[in-house]
Amino acid sequence: MRRILIGVAAVALLVGAAQAQEKKAMAVSIPTADHGWTGGVGFHAMEEAKALEKKYPGLKVIVKTSPDGASQANALEDLSTQGMDALVVLPHNPDELTDPIRKVKQKGTFITVVDRVARDRSIEDLYVGGDNPGLGAAAAAFFKQKMPNGGDIVVIRGLPIPIDEQRVNAFNEGIKGTKIKVIDSQFGDWSRDKAFNVMQDFLTKHAKIDAVWCQDDDMAVGVFQAIAQAKRSDIKFVVAGAGSKEMVKRVMDGDPMMPVDVLYSPTMIAVAMDVTALGLEDKIPVRGTYILKASLITKDNAKDFYFKDSPF
Amino acid sequence: MRRILIGVAAVALLVGAAQAQEKKAMAVSIPTADHGWTGGVGFHAMEEAKALEKKYPGLKVIVKTSPDGASQANALEDLSTQGMDALVVLPHNPDELTDPIRKVKQKGTFITVVDRVARDRSIEDLYVGGDNPGLGAAAAAFFKQKMPNGGDIVVIRGLPIPIDEQRVNAFNEGIKGTKIKVIDSQFGDWSRDKAFNVMQDFLTKHAKIDAVWCQDDDMAVGVFQAIAQAKRSDIKFVVAGAGSKEMVKRVMDGDPMMPVDVLYSPTMIAVAMDVTALGLEDKIPVRGTYILKASLITKDNAKDFYFKDSPF
Repeated sequence: MRRILIGVAAVALLVGAAQAQEKKAMAVSIPTADHGWTGGVGFHAMEEAKALEKKYPGLKVIVKTSPDGASQANALEDLSTQGMDALVVLPHNPDELTDPIRKVKQKGTFITVVDRVARDRSIEDLYVGGDNPGLGAAAAAFFKQKMPNGGDIVVIRGLPIPIDEQRVNAFNEGIKGTKIKVIDSQFGDWSRDKAFNVMQDFLTKHAKIDAVWCQDDDMAVGVFQAIAQAKRSDIKFVVAGAGSKEMVKRVMDGDPMMPVDVLYSPTMIAVAMDVTALGLEDKIPVRGTYILKASLITKDNAKDFYFKDSPF
Repeated sequence: MRRILIGVAAVALLVGAAQAQEKKAMAVSIPTADHGWTGGVGFHAMEEAKALEKKYPGLKVIVKTSPDGASQANALEDLSTQGMDALVVLPHNPDELTDPIRKVKQKGTFITVVDRVARDRSIEDLYVGGDNPGLGAAAAAFFKQKMPNGGDIVVIRGLPIPIDEQRVNAFNEGIKGTKIKVIDSQFGDWSRDKAFNVMQDFLTKHAKIDAVWCQDDDMAVGVFQAIAQAKRSDIKFVVAGAGSKEMVKRVMDGDPMMPVDVLYSPTMIAVAMDVTALGLEDKIPVRGTYILKASLITKDNAKDFYFKDSPF
């Protein structure tokens, strides 16, 4: 009897070892929700983690949020010590996180960078992000179609970093040769409050504004607030970008002030996690660059971009 | 009793209808194996179809091979009549297939184009392909590192189409400023037999050849045959591309004649199918462009690129 028991224990140990070997770990490091969009990232990362663990019973997915760059660097070190086979990371500031990410890569971990590209591309195996020039171009194409006889518009920019430049350059290129005139432009830092202040300033300075391009759904909230407070009826519409629940709902409901939105969706984190898992579990080579399209969200297709359970 | 039976039947009907509604169909249209690489595409498409139906119990995947462009156009029409929610297509000749694909898209089907990009990009929702300039650049970087003092090389090109130009231009750019000299270059049409003939010609014309860049693993088979028949020992190595089983095995085994290979893998069909399914089943926006990296396959990493059950 004793021999049999030992046998069973040994088998149990072996099975345990085999399972431990087969189980792979993916860590997902993202910013804590500091604005609507990152809130969406957190939501979709958690949803996709559940979906992936169901699709791949051998996969464990850990989602870790960090409030700032320094904490994120520490989090990467902790995760790396615990052991992970792949890291999907949306860095606070990619330059600040470059060295911490490189250290993780040097241990043989597969690295997927999301959204915010690092200057040093050698730290990534896979990059998944939105199409920033495409976002500006899609917005411009809509203005061009909506304003065949031109008009006076104001532009609220993001932060003075390359992403913003790419968007704005493509927008300006897109309206070139039309009668659409940008009568004012200021940075709104992709912040709801800052955009509110900028829009208030525009409304004070300009007696007539035909439309607003504000590039970002969080900023659009501030813009709409400022317009409502000023009780101005000259502004015909606002074009933003991201694909937030609130703005997609306005588009879906046919709100004339928000006829379209441009996609730059936090669901990109889910795409990045899915493809990374394909490489990890099914051994398919997935290294490369995946740029998600800045689709125009219209009344007709808005339901495809509406995530009713997401906070964003 | 009769009432109860009718009730059960009604419930069964409703359940049947709900299931029928939920079941989605993805069609995968690819060329019949006309050379090694397309053989790999067929194998990986079938493998991924099985994997996806397991991951998504609500998904049906149909893989259809066609021997030429005209048959593929007919196949698309048939598949479209049967009804499909998404089409993953690797076209024989993208220009010939543009109109048939557009017709499918107009019915509301999601279109993923793989490898061979069409001039009219509006027919695609998603594009998944290899990195052609990257393939040339990776090969050039290896030649540069392997031949610090230069050498005389011959280049066998593919077909005179843009893919080949992108590869060759990037290669030439990469060896610029070195002492590596391309002493001869001819088209091998990505064909094993044609490459054999071209290499025989090179060997007749040139008494000394240090190395060969032939861009493609199928062509490498012909190149090795020609070298063996001519019993020439001056050629130090051959660099090809794709990641075929035979060539990856040579790299893995440390064959000095094949020190590296450059990835341009038929597994791209599996990546395309996986991402398309994510959009279809999990409703994640996946439209965009995904360029897979032309990774350098070396003795150290070759095992990651070796698919023992694949015919290619």
